[in-house]
Amino acid sequence: MAPVLALTTGEPAGIGPELALMLVASRVPLAGRVVAIGDPDLLAQRARRLGLDIELPVLARRDEVPAQRPGVLPVWPVTLRAPATAGMLDAANAGYVLETLDVAIAACRDGRAQAMVTAPLHKGVIIEGGHPDFTGHTEYLRDACGVEDVVMMLATRLATPSGDQALRVALASVHLPLREVADAITDAGLTRVLRILDGDLKRYFAVAAPRIAVCGLNPHAGENGHLGREELEVIIPTLERLRCEGLRLDGPLPADTLFTPRHLDGIDAVLAMYHDQGLPVLKYAGFGRAANITLGLPIVRTSVDHGTALDLAGTGRADIGSLGVALEVAAEMARAVGH
Amino acid sequence: MAPVLALTTGEPAGIGPELALMLVASRVPLAGRVVAIGDPDLLAQRARRLGLDIELPVLARRDEVPAQRPGVLPVWPVTLRAPATAGMLDAANAGYVLETLDVAIAACRDGRAQAMVTAPLHKGVIIEGGHPDFTGHTEYLRDACGVEDVVMMLATRLATPSGDQALRVALASVHLPLREVADAITDAGLTRVLRILDGDLKRYFAVAAPRIAVCGLNPHAGENGHLGREELEVIIPTLERLRCEGLRLDGPLPADTLFTPRHLDGIDAVLAMYHDQGLPVLKYAGFGRAANITLGLPIVRTSVDHGTALDLAGTGRADIGSLGVALEVAAEMARAVGH
Repeated sequence: MAPVLALTTGEPAGIGPELALMLVASRVPLAGRVVAIGDPDLLAQRARRLGLDIELPVLARRDEVPAQRPGVLPVWPVTLRAPATAGMLDAANAGYVLETLDVAIAACRDGRAQAMVTAPLHKGVIIEGGHPDFTGHTEYLRDACGVEDVVMMLATRLATPSGDQALRVALASVHLPLREVADAITDAGLTRVLRILDGDLKRYFAVAAPRIAVCGLNPHAGENGHLGREELEVIIPTLERLRCEGLRLDGPLPADTLFTPRHLDGIDAVLAMYHDQGLPVLKYAGFGRAANITLGLPIVRTSVDHGTALDLAGTGRADIGSLGVALEVAAEMARAVGH
Repeated sequence: MAPVLALTTGEPAGIGPELALMLVASRVPLAGRVVAIGDPDLLAQRARRLGLDIELPVLARRDEVPAQRPGVLPVWPVTLRAPATAGMLDAANAGYVLETLDVAIAACRDGRAQAMVTAPLHKGVIIEGGHPDFTGHTEYLRDACGVEDVVMMLATRLATPSGDQALRVALASVHLPLREVADAITDAGLTRVLRILDGDLKRYFAVAAPRIAVCGLNPHAGENGHLGREELEVIIPTLERLRCEGLRLDGPLPADTLFTPRHLDGIDAVLAMYHDQGLPVLKYAGFGRAANITLGLPIVRTSVDHGTALDLAGTGRADIGSLGVALEVAAEMARAVGH
């Protein structure tokens, strides 16, 4: 059987619910057995609003998820705490959004699902709704799964001189103010991130000996210390040590020369030191066809690469491209570990 | 007459001399009257090594630069201080490299040339050669021209929903260690950079009312203060004030959503806050067809977007794409101001 992909429909005022509906309506064959997690009435209402004829069978949590059929989206139900209106955030539904995540995590951990795929949530409204420490999907999953470290990686497809290949960009630091980034790049942290990245490229992407290109922290990768010393003092010694353990690492390289097709050829993943060093180019190259992947978890989790787009919610004009890729990548990862 | 473009051939051990020769040998029509500045014997030697049949007439500084002819590269001579070998840096030639710049600057300032275009130099060897304060072409030109502030901008062409347009990325900070960037983004500095950018887009690129998209400093443009406060405290108030002066500014916007064709449509330039936020995506999109432009000078100056590539020097395998674009842009800018 195809892997079960548990799709959390995210913020109920955003585009998440309709992306799930539009994907099923598009009749593109999905890579697994998708089950949506969310409020069935909300989904039905949003489908009517968009004029989509989607069957929404409600499953019990223990029911087997049926094979995918065109126009059918099975649902594991979670009940809204307050009525949801497209485009209008309501902090009363913060608990609803977190419950959809809990349902997906539990299903992945006990084997009823082989991967979870998340539609966007709205961090601000979760915080406002009584969860002041909430910092995002990735950290919530890390804590729920009881692991210390996770790695955020985005992936898309790219044409290179030797043909089409995946472009994957992982981050050594994620949601930090820029002024805190330099101090966050440590030997211990980089070591953990690179071991997770190397291990999960082998495990989930069937790369026997991953080749990872590592960006410098500073412009021109520090230019031998003229533009910053973190390469000399932290990054280069860490990479040297990890090479002795057998990791295949290029760099540290200047980010503005690394991200060219010639340098990316044959590279399985790039490690950028921080968010805006790696993601603008990945999203530019990916063109709405990129997925976000959380590495280091005991479960498979992918996500769309965009936000709740409140201004588009309810219009049917949101782009399903990223959700499609997120489901494909989740299925690929689930199959790589034997599903 | 077409504008005179003074082309400094840069580090003599690098690819600069051969790029100039290869460009003339390619018989692509050039956008102006190109005159190379460098050692004529070095150029002749490098031409022989590459099997290129190029005529290298030596001009006196006051001679009129003739109209471009295929296979002919006029030279304003500057004499090497020591023999140059492709791929082998020699600090003895630091003064030679700087003299080529001085010749070009003088020609632009007294009207014998309408623009200067620079092939790459090697900063380290200039420093080693007795110029410890040298930090690059841009700063050298700024000081030589006696101005306070210059703005580095890279440009290439980009396909958008409404057709082909220029993609231009200017930087609010340039060659700084990452940990110094946040403190370098000030109200006064941003104001100067945006006024230069707005003014020079009008003056040199014939944009009547430039529309500039400004990146945030922090990931997600700070996410309302959750990921850094510089947007709220510095960037947003500065943009508000400049809008009152009539500047058309979008932002601050998250860098990873701004750099997508949909958001770039109709934008005349992007202002990135720092080097690796703006240049990886520009160079990825530009694919060896990008030029570096220095704004804020009393003269027109463009440059290639790459380094000396010592490993390629003498092989003839370097890519002339960026030099071609740098010459085109220089000619476009010179014509916009009446040449």
